[in-house]
Amino acid sequence: MAPLYFLDLLGTVAFAISGALVAMNKRLDPFGVFIIAFVTAVGGGTIRDMLTGRLPVGWMNDINYMYTILVSTLIAIIFRKKLRFWSKTFFLFDTIGIGVFTIIGTEIGVQAGFHPIISIALGTMTACFGGVTRDILCNDIPIIFRKEIYAIACIIGAITFLILQELFENTNYMYIGTTLIVIIVRLLAVKFKLSLPTFYSDYR
Amino acid sequence: MAPLYFLDLLGTVAFAISGALVAMNKRLDPFGVFIIAFVTAVGGGTIRDMLTGRLPVGWMNDINYMYTILVSTLIAIIFRKKLRFWSKTFFLFDTIGIGVFTIIGTEIGVQAGFHPIISIALGTMTACFGGVTRDILCNDIPIIFRKEIYAIACIIGAITFLILQELFENTNYMYIGTTLIVIIVRLLAVKFKLSLPTFYSDYR
Amino acid sequence: MAPLYFLDLLGTVAFAISGALVAMNKRLDPFGVFIIAFVTAVGGGTIRDMLTGRLPVGWMNDINYMYTILVSTLIAIIFRKKLRFWSKTFFLFDTIGIGVFTIIGTEIGVQAGFHPIISIALGTMTACFGGVTRDILCNDIPIIFRKEIYAIACIIGAITFLILQELFENTNYMYIGTTLIVIIVRLLAVKFKLSLPTFYSDYR
Repeated sequence: MAPLYFLDLLGTVAFAISGALVAMNKRLDPFGVFIIAFVTAVGGGTIRDMLTGRLPVGWMNDINYMYTILVSTLIAIIFRKKLRFWSKTFFLFDTIGIGVFTIIGTEIGVQAGFHPIISIALGTMTACFGGVTRDILCNDIPIIFRKEIYAIACIIGAITFLILQELFENTNYMYIGTTLIVIIVRLLAVKFKLSLPTFYSDYR
Repeated sequence: MAPLYFLDLLGTVAFAISGALVAMNKRLDPFGVFIIAFVTAVGGGTIRDMLTGRLPVGWMNDINYMYTILVSTLIAIIFRKKLRFWSKTFFLFDTIGIGVFTIIGTEIGVQAGFHPIISIALGTMTACFGGVTRDILCNDIPIIFRKEIYAIACIIGAITFLILQELFENTNYMYIGTTLIVIIVRLLAVKFKLSLPTFYSDYR
Repeated sequence: MAPLYFLDLLGTVAFAISGALVAMNKRLDPFGVFIIAFVTAVGGGTIRDMLTGRLPVGWMNDINYMYTILVSTLIAIIFRKKLRFWSKTFFLFDTIGIGVFTIIGTEIGVQAGFHPIISIALGTMTACFGGVTRDILCNDIPIIFRKEIYAIACIIGAITFLILQELFENTNYMYIGTTLIVIIVRLLAVKFKLSLPTFYSDYR
């Protein structure tokens, strides 16, 4: 199995579980839990494919995504009582999904020959759009607009990935390493409560 | 006129009226009523076409959809005072639209050669997405996430359709019969207040 | 530079600034301000391109849009303290964007050979969808559903454009003149508080 495909399924598992956790927290019925898990898992890749014209979108041509999300949702439902530390579990899976999908989206942009800035934007959208849709459907203010340097972590990882690709040949280590960079930057940002400077003290 | 095309226009009428009723209930101006009617009627088919790459989307290539929605909206506005039983009328038209669009979306998936599960998902999305968009634009919590076995009715109808297609040749009776299955399952589900079992009694 | 391309960048500047103003009003961090500016500026054209199959969507193939939005956002941030009359400034830029994008969207519909009514709808969507997305992301009720004859101004401008195209050859004056018609109709509508007649006095 190609490493990018393996990473894609890993990100699908992580995001599906994060979506299922939010949906269960909102007391949705089992079908609603599956729908939110599904949208969270494939939302970013779907918008990326619709924008770039990779149609039909990825999950329609490969039934493995559907099965992966179904199993992940079932696991989340079955183990819901074990999750003593709900918010930490959610945060972990959300972060893994973000890391994986950033690099996949950026690589797809590179392969399609887009400008590096557009590739970075594609990676960031792939990573963030599923979570944004999850939050909108669950009627939360999208986390991306409120907290932390969520998207900045994606951008740092994507830029690192593009620089490494310029310097070296593509290797599996490069995918995994830059995925870890996104994850670590986000973990550090949350741990040390890093955020972008604001400028509203002087703003009427 | 091909039966699928006739059913498509029938579903368009039903969803346009359901959208117009919600919009009038929200006291939107006539243009807003038309927009909500339009989005409700074409929303599901539009997302289906964008995901599968049937572009431009259906209603852009056939002006009859636009005329159908315009006339349906006018009828809904003109007869608004006759609607003594608003919620029942809304529910009826919403259910007809769901039934029709489930089978159309599933059939399009089959014709495009997708996996049966993907075809079922396409049918369900075609049926449900217009109503979800209507509810989001009107600032309601999407009905699909809150009540009844809305989407389950679509899935049961779509599976029946796929099984019948395996067993027999495609006939107009099959389209109409499976559309009725979706409608009847939903009506029964609401009448007997059926819903999926939840599992939150034990959930912290 | 082709006049349509120049107008497109002008509309991008106007909408980016309008989005940045709304985002700063909501106290988003600099990255959030950029995202909202970006979505507002390219949202309408993106949905138009996704519906009609012009993929990848426009801004992915031309990095100038990205640069234009980045610079516009920076200008909006830098000059935020100079904006004594926030709501008037916002309204001005929003209106310029609407005027420009209405005509561009309509012209793209004409060039693609769509029915005139579909071309008008494309122009109106190109003009309005960015603002609707901005309002949804910032958790406001979309302005288009609440106030003024927002979309009616687009439709009047688009119809005028189609009639002039029938009567005369395409000229730059025609683009600019019909853009001004949209802008003026909206300004007059707001000044004189014009709105569509409602019919709810008699509605239960």
